[in-house]
Amino acid sequence: MLSLEQLREITRQSESKIVLLVIDGLGGLPKLDTGKTELETARTPNLDKLATKGICGLTEPVSPGITPGSAPGHLALFGYDPTKFEVGRGILEALGIDFDLKKGDVAARGNFCTIDNKGLITDRRAGRISTEENAKLCNKLSRIKLDGAQLFVTPVKEHRFLLVFRGEGLSGDASDSDPQQVGVAPLSIVGYSAKGRKTAKLANEFSAKAKAVLADSHPANMVLLRGFSQHPNLPTMNEIFKLNPAAIAAYPMYRGLAKLVGMKVLNTGPTTAEEFDTLVKHYAEHDFFFIHVKKTDSTGEDGDFDAKVQALEEIDRLLPKITDLNPDVLIVTGDHSTPALLKGHSWHPVPIVLYSRWCRADKAQKFGETACASGGLGRFPAVEVMPLAMANALKLTKFGA
Amino acid sequence: MLSLEQLREITRQSESKIVLLVIDGLGGLPKLDTGKTELETARTPNLDKLATKGICGLTEPVSPGITPGSAPGHLALFGYDPTKFEVGRGILEALGIDFDLKKGDVAARGNFCTIDNKGLITDRRAGRISTEENAKLCNKLSRIKLDGAQLFVTPVKEHRFLLVFRGEGLSGDASDSDPQQVGVAPLSIVGYSAKGRKTAKLANEFSAKAKAVLADSHPANMVLLRGFSQHPNLPTMNEIFKLNPAAIAAYPMYRGLAKLVGMKVLNTGPTTAEEFDTLVKHYAEHDFFFIHVKKTDSTGEDGDFDAKVQALEEIDRLLPKITDLNPDVLIVTGDHSTPALLKGHSWHPVPIVLYSRWCRADKAQKFGETACASGGLGRFPAVEVMPLAMANALKLTKFGA
Repeated sequence: MLSLEQLREITRQSESKIVLLVIDGLGGLPKLDTGKTELETARTPNLDKLATKGICGLTEPVSPGITPGSAPGHLALFGYDPTKFEVGRGILEALGIDFDLKKGDVAARGNFCTIDNKGLITDRRAGRISTEENAKLCNKLSRIKLDGAQLFVTPVKEHRFLLVFRGEGLSGDASDSDPQQVGVAPLSIVGYSAKGRKTAKLANEFSAKAKAVLADSHPANMVLLRGFSQHPNLPTMNEIFKLNPAAIAAYPMYRGLAKLVGMKVLNTGPTTAEEFDTLVKHYAEHDFFFIHVKKTDSTGEDGDFDAKVQALEEIDRLLPKITDLNPDVLIVTGDHSTPALLKGHSWHPVPIVLYSRWCRADKAQKFGETACASGGLGRFPAVEVMPLAMANALKLTKFGA
Repeated sequence: MLSLEQLREITRQSESKIVLLVIDGLGGLPKLDTGKTELETARTPNLDKLATKGICGLTEPVSPGITPGSAPGHLALFGYDPTKFEVGRGILEALGIDFDLKKGDVAARGNFCTIDNKGLITDRRAGRISTEENAKLCNKLSRIKLDGAQLFVTPVKEHRFLLVFRGEGLSGDASDSDPQQVGVAPLSIVGYSAKGRKTAKLANEFSAKAKAVLADSHPANMVLLRGFSQHPNLPTMNEIFKLNPAAIAAYPMYRGLAKLVGMKVLNTGPTTAEEFDTLVKHYAEHDFFFIHVKKTDSTGEDGDFDAKVQALEEIDRLLPKITDLNPDVLIVTGDHSTPALLKGHSWHPVPIVLYSRWCRADKAQKFGETACASGGLGRFPAVEVMPLAMANALKLTKFGA
C-alpha cells in the first residue's frame, strides 16, 4: 500500500468521473432456511448486470475480524487508513450538524439519560425523548457557565446532543462518563494528559451542573458524555487525489465524514430516489461523487431481514438513474456488514463491484456475498478502493521510474 | 491490521469458547501420481463436514514465500506479528522444560555432537544419544566454572540440552557455534554488541572447557550452541484478548510457546487421543484452548507421505471428541506446511477451517489445499486468525466511532 504522500505524487486531474455508492451495512449473513444473505435474497437485476460487466470482490473495512464503526468504515473507502486516522465520536457529531468548529475546540457526544433517585442509570437514552424536547433542554444547559471555557450545547436528534468546549489548552484525551450500561452511575471523567485533565475537569463540572438543571426533567434528568475529541485535520481528497469531490447523504454523520476529507456536501432530499436525483442534477459539477444510502444499515440493525431485502431492491430499482449517466467508474459497496441476524455492525467482509471500461471483468454474474467471494478482486482492504477507482478512471500515473 | 494496543481496547471477556487445533506441518504438496496432497489423500469425513459447515482459506504464517520456524508459526496463530516478536531458540528450549528463567538470563540450545580427531563435526546429533546419557554428560558440564556468570546445563531429550548463563550485562546478541553442517569445525561465537560480546566470550570459554570435559565421551565428544536469546516479554493473551487460555501439547517446545503468551499448560498424555481427552476434562475451566498435534510434522519431516496421511486420518477419527463439545468457535489449521516431498517445513500457505454460527460458510466441502484455496477466507496472514476467532466468538466490540 502506498502512503498518502506517495499516492499524491501519482494522481492527476482529468475529466473522468467516479461514482462511489455506499450502501450502509451492505453485507449480511445467510438465513438458515434459505442459505441466502439479504443481498442474495433480494431481486437485484441491475446490480447483477453491473456484477456481470464489472469486477467483484469483498472488502475488509479495517482488517479480518474487526467490526468497524461508521467512521473507520467510511474513511477506509475514502482512501484513509482507519487504523492510522481515528475520528472521535464528538467530532463526527459536530460535523454532522454543521457545527462551526474552531481550531482547538473539543467536542463530545451527549445523551440525555434517565437516572433513579440513587443516581443509577435506568435508561441510557431517556426513552428517546423528542427532538423538540431535546432542543428545550439544550437551551437550558447552554446557560451553564464554566470556569475556563465557553460552552455550546446543541441538539442533534431524539436524546442526542453535541457538547463543545472552546478554550485554551484543551484536548480530547479524556474518558467517557457514559458507562454503556444501565444500573450503574455515570462515570467520573478522567484526563490522560495535562490538556485532557483540563477537559475532564470542565466535563465533570458540566455534568454536575447539568444534573441540577435537569432535576425536574424526568425522563431526561441526566447527561452522559462520550467521545471527547478534536478535529483530526486530515489531508483532503483534493490534496491527495486532485478530485473535486461531492457528497450526497441524507444522514448528518455521513455528511460530516465527507466534510472531514474535504468533500462538498450537496443539498439533497432524504429518500434514495432524491439522493440519486441530486447526483443527476449536479453531475456536471464534480468528478467524484460519494452517495450514501442508510436504510440497509438501519433495517439490519433492527434485525429486519425482509426490510433490508426491500431496501436493497429499492436501490436496485433506482440504479439506472446512476448507470444512465455512464460514469467512467462506478463502485457499489458498503462501509461494513450489518447482518439482520446479528442486529448490528459486523466484521464480515463487504461485497463490492467496480465497473469501468478497463476493469478486467470476472465471472461473477450476481452481486452477492458468495459470488463476490470468488470475484476477481478477491478479499482486499477497503483502503485500496480509492487507488483502484482512480486507476480505473485513468487518473493515476506510473509509480516509480 | 490493528496494533495489539488497538486490539486490546476492543476485546471483551465473555462465556463463549474458542478451540484452536493446530496440526503441526498440516499443509503439503501433491504426489505426482495422484495429484493429491497428504490432506487431500487422507480420508477425513469429520474435517470435511467441518469444511462444509464452516469457512475455509489458506493462512500465510509469516508472508508469501517465507518458511517459518515453529515459533513464528505459532506466535502468528496466537495473534502476535512474527516479524515483530522474535523468540530465540534458546528461550524456547528453556520454556519447554520449565526452566525457571530469571530476568537477564541468556539461554542457548545445545546439541551434543561428534567431532573427529581433526576437530571436524561428523555427526551434529552425536548419534542421538539416550536422554540418560545426556543427563550424565550435562551433570559433568554443569561443573564448569566461568568467569563472570553462573552456568546451568540442563538435559532436554536425546542429544539436546539447554545452556543458560546468568550474570550481569549479557544479551542474546551473539552468533551460533553450530555450523548446521558436518565436515567443518564448530564456529567461534561472535557478539554483535557489547553485551553480546560478553555472552560470546562466555560461550567460547564454555565450548572449549566442554570439549576437554567430553574428550572421552565419544560419540558425544563436543557441543554445538545456537539461538542465544533472552525472554521476549510478550504481552499475554489475557492482557490483549481478555482470555483465560489453556494449552494442550505433548511436546515441550509448544508448551513453551504457549507459556510465552501466558497460556496455562494443562497436563496431558502424549497421544492425540489423550490430548483431546485433556480438552474434554478441562473444557469448563477455560475460554480458549490451543491443542497441538505433532505427528503430522514429524512424519512430513521424515518424508513419509503415507504416515502423514495416517496421522491426519487419526486426527479426523478423534475430531468428534472436540466437535461434540460444540465450541462457539472451532479452528483447525497448522503452524506451517511440512510437505513429505520436501522433508521439512515449507513456505506453502496452510489450510484453515473456521466454524462458528456466524462464520458465513463458503462452498468448500472438503478440507484440503485445493478446496481451501477457493474458500471464503481466501489467503490471509495467520496473525489475523485470532481477531477472526474473537469476532466469531462475539468477543470484540466495534472499532472506532
